[in-house]
Amino acid sequence: MKLAIAQLNPTIGDLTGNAQQILDAAKTAANQGVRLLLTPELSLCGYPPRDLLLNPSFVAAMATQVQQLAWDLPPQIAVLLGMATPNPTAHSAGGKSLFNSIALLEQGKVQQVFHKRLLPTYDVFDEHRYFEPGLQSNAFTLDGIGIGVTICEDLWNDEEFWGKRLYQVNPIADLAHQGVDILVNLSASPYSTGKQQVREAMLRHTSQRYQQTILYTNQVGGNDDLLFDGSSVAVNQSGEVVARACAFDSDLVILTFDEERRDLLPGTITPSPASIDEEIWLALVLGVKDYSRKCRFKQAVIGLSGGIDSALVAAIATAALGKENVLGVLMPSPYSSDHSIKDAQDLVNNLGINSQIIPIGDLMQGYDQTLEPLFAGTEFGIAEENIQSRIRGNLLMAIANKFGYLLLSTGNKSEMAVGYCTLYGDMNGGLAVIADLPKTQVYSLCQWLNTVAKKEIDRNHHLSGITHHQGEIIPNNILVKPPSAELKPGQVDQDSLPSYEVLDDILHRLVHEHQSAEQIIEAGHHSTIVEKIIRLVTRAEFKRRQAPPGLKITDRAFGTGWRMPIASQRRQKVEGRRQEAGDRRY
Amino acid sequence: MKLAIAQLNPTIGDLTGNAQQILDAAKTAANQGVRLLLTPELSLCGYPPRDLLLNPSFVAAMATQVQQLAWDLPPQIAVLLGMATPNPTAHSAGGKSLFNSIALLEQGKVQQVFHKRLLPTYDVFDEHRYFEPGLQSNAFTLDGIGIGVTICEDLWNDEEFWGKRLYQVNPIADLAHQGVDILVNLSASPYSTGKQQVREAMLRHTSQRYQQTILYTNQVGGNDDLLFDGSSVAVNQSGEVVARACAFDSDLVILTFDEERRDLLPGTITPSPASIDEEIWLALVLGVKDYSRKCRFKQAVIGLSGGIDSALVAAIATAALGKENVLGVLMPSPYSSDHSIKDAQDLVNNLGINSQIIPIGDLMQGYDQTLEPLFAGTEFGIAEENIQSRIRGNLLMAIANKFGYLLLSTGNKSEMAVGYCTLYGDMNGGLAVIADLPKTQVYSLCQWLNTVAKKEIDRNHHLSGITHHQGEIIPNNILVKPPSAELKPGQVDQDSLPSYEVLDDILHRLVHEHQSAEQIIEAGHHSTIVEKIIRLVTRAEFKRRQAPPGLKITDRAFGTGWRMPIASQRRQKVEGRRQEAGDRRY
Repeated sequence: MKLAIAQLNPTIGDLTGNAQQILDAAKTAANQGVRLLLTPELSLCGYPPRDLLLNPSFVAAMATQVQQLAWDLPPQIAVLLGMATPNPTAHSAGGKSLFNSIALLEQGKVQQVFHKRLLPTYDVFDEHRYFEPGLQSNAFTLDGIGIGVTICEDLWNDEEFWGKRLYQVNPIADLAHQGVDILVNLSASPYSTGKQQVREAMLRHTSQRYQQTILYTNQVGGNDDLLFDGSSVAVNQSGEVVARACAFDSDLVILTFDEERRDLLPGTITPSPASIDEEIWLALVLGVKDYSRKCRFKQAVIGLSGGIDSALVAAIATAALGKENVLGVLMPSPYSSDHSIKDAQDLVNNLGINSQIIPIGDLMQGYDQTLEPLFAGTEFGIAEENIQSRIRGNLLMAIANKFGYLLLSTGNKSEMAVGYCTLYGDMNGGLAVIADLPKTQVYSLCQWLNTVAKKEIDRNHHLSGITHHQGEIIPNNILVKPPSAELKPGQVDQDSLPSYEVLDDILHRLVHEHQSAEQIIEAGHHSTIVEKIIRLVTRAEFKRRQAPPGLKITDRAFGTGWRMPIASQRRQKVEGRRQEAGDRRY
Repeated sequence: MKLAIAQLNPTIGDLTGNAQQILDAAKTAANQGVRLLLTPELSLCGYPPRDLLLNPSFVAAMATQVQQLAWDLPPQIAVLLGMATPNPTAHSAGGKSLFNSIALLEQGKVQQVFHKRLLPTYDVFDEHRYFEPGLQSNAFTLDGIGIGVTICEDLWNDEEFWGKRLYQVNPIADLAHQGVDILVNLSASPYSTGKQQVREAMLRHTSQRYQQTILYTNQVGGNDDLLFDGSSVAVNQSGEVVARACAFDSDLVILTFDEERRDLLPGTITPSPASIDEEIWLALVLGVKDYSRKCRFKQAVIGLSGGIDSALVAAIATAALGKENVLGVLMPSPYSSDHSIKDAQDLVNNLGINSQIIPIGDLMQGYDQTLEPLFAGTEFGIAEENIQSRIRGNLLMAIANKFGYLLLSTGNKSEMAVGYCTLYGDMNGGLAVIADLPKTQVYSLCQWLNTVAKKEIDRNHHLSGITHHQGEIIPNNILVKPPSAELKPGQVDQDSLPSYEVLDDILHRLVHEHQSAEQIIEAGHHSTIVEKIIRLVTRAEFKRRQAPPGLKITDRAFGTGWRMPIASQRRQKVEGRRQEAGDRRY
C-alpha cells in the first residue's frame, strides 16, 4: 500500500484555502497510486487557531468544509485531516466544548473521527483552554492494514526516552498493545534549534521499543511567532529513518508499506540542515516570507544603523522577499559615526536592496526646542536618547504607512531581555525577526552567512534572493567593531552591560534553565552582575509586553509562551537604584 | 467560634510583603478573639503569579516563607493561606509539577495542605499550565467544628445554577455529602461588571441547596490588567448574606459561628456599589492606584486632546494619585479646533491638575520636510495623520522618561476593536486605563461622574483626590460635541465609523457573544457595516498585540484573555479594499 505525507503550510483560519491545499495534495498523490494521505494536526484550520476556536460559527464552518472536501476527493484515496469537532456531552457531563480531532475521509464521507488524548498546556501551547482530551485509543483498518492514529503530543510521553512522564497515559503503548501495522502521528510541532535531532531520536526509540513503523507528519510554515519546520519523517520497524521531507518548505513524500513484510520500504531521505546556523537561517527566512505573505505584504522596510542586528535582518528580508522588495533606511544623527553610514551603505550594496538616507538632526533639534520649556536645566539622559530612537521609529512607520510596507524590527534577544531597547522606537515593527536570537547567536549567524556567500553552490540554495553580494554579505567592519546604540557620543553597549558572552550565559541560565541568582553565581558569575541583570530583566517586562511578535527559535522565547507579571516584585538582596545607566526606560 | 475574612491586596511575587500583610491581619484578628483567619487564593504570592511559578526557587521560597510565618503567628489563631506546593509524583506518574494549595497554619506548623480541584483554563486563566488538580475532598476539624475547604473555581460548578457543568466533579457537593459545619471558599476572582450579583446569587443558591454556611474570601486590588473587587461575603445556612466586605479596598471582616445553632450570626454588611458606573469608577481608580504603586510610580502624565476619553482618564488618575501627581499635556496642532484647547483647559481647572501646552506644528513641519524626498507627489493620508499622533506619543514618553512619570494611555475599547488608533502614537503608555470600556460606556461614566460631583456626600467618598471641581468634572462641551481625532481639518469619528451605539452593539455581539456575521445581520444591523466592522476588528489584531495592559472590566477584554492569531484569514463574502478610510493602519 502506498501512503503519502502531505507536509502542508496552512494559513490560520483560511478553511477554503487550506482545504484546497489538501485537495491538491490528494490529487497528486492519487495519481501516483497513493491509498492514504496524511496531513498535519488541525490541517483544515492551521495550527494554532487560538481563540478563533471560541467562535461556534468557525467550528461549524469546519464541519461544512470537510464534508465538501470529502465529496471533492478522488474516489480511490483516503485522507486523514485535522480539525476541531464539538464535544457533545460537554454541557451535561462537564468538560471543554471541543476535541482536537482527526477525521478519516473516504468515499465521499467522514468515516471516522479520532480525538487527541494528550493536550499540551505549557510554553506556547494552550490546548486545555479549548479541548477535552480523548479517552480512547484511535485506530482503523484500511485494506486489511491496521493503522493507529496519534496526534502530535500523543507521541511525546515515553517515560523511557524522557526519564519522566508528563501524562498518565501513553497512547503509543496503548496502540502497540492493541496491535497495529502502522502508527501515524499527525503533528504541528514548532521548530526550535536542534529539535529535529530530538524528534528523530525519540521516533527511533519508540519504533524500536514497540517494533512499530511510524509516519510522522508535521506542519510547515510561519504562523505569527511560531515557525514549523516540517521535516516529517518515516521510520521502519527497526527504528531506521526511511524517508524525510525537506525542512522549512512544503513537501509531499510517498512511501510504500510492504504488506508481506509488514514494514515500510526505503523512500526519499532529504538531508537535514547541516548546522544550527543553517537551521536558524532557513527558519527566519521562512518566518519573514510567511508572515508577509499571510498578512499580504510584498515589501519590507528596515532601519539600517550600520550595526550587526539590522544587517542580519536586512539579509534575511532580502532572501525572503527579494532585493527589489526591501528598503533600507539610514537615519544618521550627529552622534552617528562615519563608519556606521559607510557600513550600512556597504551592506546595501552587498544585498542590492533599495536605500534612503534621512538625517534626523533637524528633528532632534525640533524636539529639543519644543521641550525646552519643560526640560530646561535638566541633563542629557535616557529621555533624550529615546527621543532619537523614537524619531527613527516614527519615520519608519510613516514610510511603512505611506507605501504599505511591513516594518521589520531588528532587536535581538539579549537586548529584549535587559530592556536595552526603546519602546516605540527601535522596537517598532510588525514582526521582530531576530528577537529570539541572543547577540552571540547573531554574530555566529552572520559569520555563517559570509562563509556560505563564498560557496557558490550553497549560495544558490540559501541565498536565492541575494544576487548582488560580492563574496561577503555582512561587511566585515560590522562584524569586528564594538556594538553601539550611538545615542550619545562614544557610547558602546559594554558601557552599561557585561560582555555579550557573559550576558548571554547569564540570560540562558535565567530564562531557559529557570536558575536562581544563587545558582548562576555558583556557576562562576559575579554576584553584582547577576543581580543587576536579574533586576533589568524583571524591569523590562513592560517593554516586552508591547513588543511585536518575534520569530521563535528556542524552547523559551519572549512571546506567547512567556507570561510574566509586570507589576511584580521579588525583593532582591541588593536594592537597585530606580534608573540604571543603560536601562533605556520605556 | 470567631472567624475572620482577610480581604488582602498582595503584590505579585512579593512573598515577604504579602506574608507581612497576613501576619498583620492575623494579629489584629487574634486580638479580637478570632480562632480562624481566612486569606485569598495564593495569598502568599498574589494571584496570578503566572510564569514566576516556573521558577523552582520561587516555589521553594514560598515553603520557607510559610514556615517562618507559621512561627510568627499569634499562638491562638489558625490561618488558611494560599500558596503553590510541589506535586511529588509528577515525574513518576505524570502530571503538572505543582498544586494550587491552601495551607492550614497552626501552632507554629503547617498542619495540613489542601489542593484546588477545579482549575480554570479559559479567558485570563491558565491554571492547567502550572497545576495538577487535587483529587480529594478537603476538610479539617477545628475545635470540634468541621470546615470544608474550597478554592475559587471549586465553587463554580453548580449545574443547577448554571444550567450546565464545566467539570465532572463538584467539590461543594462532595463536602456537603461528607458533612461539614462551615464551607470556606478562598478566591482570587477578578472583577467584571455585575459579577458580584452573580456571585451572591450563586452563593445563596449553593447555600440553600446544601444547607451550608459559606465564607467567601476574595482577593482585592489591581494586578496588571486584572482587577479584583474583594466584596467577600458570608452566607448563613438559609442562604442569607450575613456579612459583606467592602468593594475595591482591603478589609477584615469578623464573624461568629454559633456552635449551638451551627450557623453564622449576622455581621457587618457593607453595601455594594449602587450602579454599574460606580463599580467601574471604583475599579478603574483602584487599577491605576495599584499599578502605579506596585510599579513604584508616584506621578502620571496624560495627553489631553479635549476629547472625552482623555478627560475621563485624567479624572480617574486624579482620584487615584491626587491632583498634584497628575500632569495633563495639551499638544495642539494646526488641525486642533479652538474648543479642544478650551475644553482641555476647563478640564484641567475642574480637576486642579498640572498642565503644559506643547504645540506640535513645528515638529509636523519638520517631519514633512524630512520626508519630502520620499513623499513628494503623494497625497495627505493616514501616514500623515499617524505622524501627528506619534509626535505626541514621543513627547509624552520624553516627559515620562525625563521625570519618571507613568504615561497613561486613553484609548477606549471601541477604537481598540476597530483599530481607530495609532500604534506608537496615542496607544503609548504603561497602562491603558479605559481600554475595556466601549465608547458608549465612556459617556455613561462621565455623566455619572458629573452627577456625583454635584452631590457633596458622594463626592467625598468617590472623588477624594479631586478637590477643585466646580460642580462638574467633565466639561459639558466635551460631553456634547461630536468625537473627533482631529488629525485632519473637520474630521469626526463618524466619517469612517457608524454611530457608537451601532458600533458598540455590533462589537458586543462579535467580541462577547461570539456571534457570526449572519447572526449580527439578523439582529438588525446592515450587512455592509457588519462586514466592514468584522474586517476592521480582524485587521487591527497586530495593533492590539502591542497595546499596553488594559484594565479589564468585562468578561471578554482585549488582553491576556484574548488570544487571536494575527496572520490569519477568514474569507469574507465581500473582499475589502486593502486600506479602509478611517483605518489608521499600524
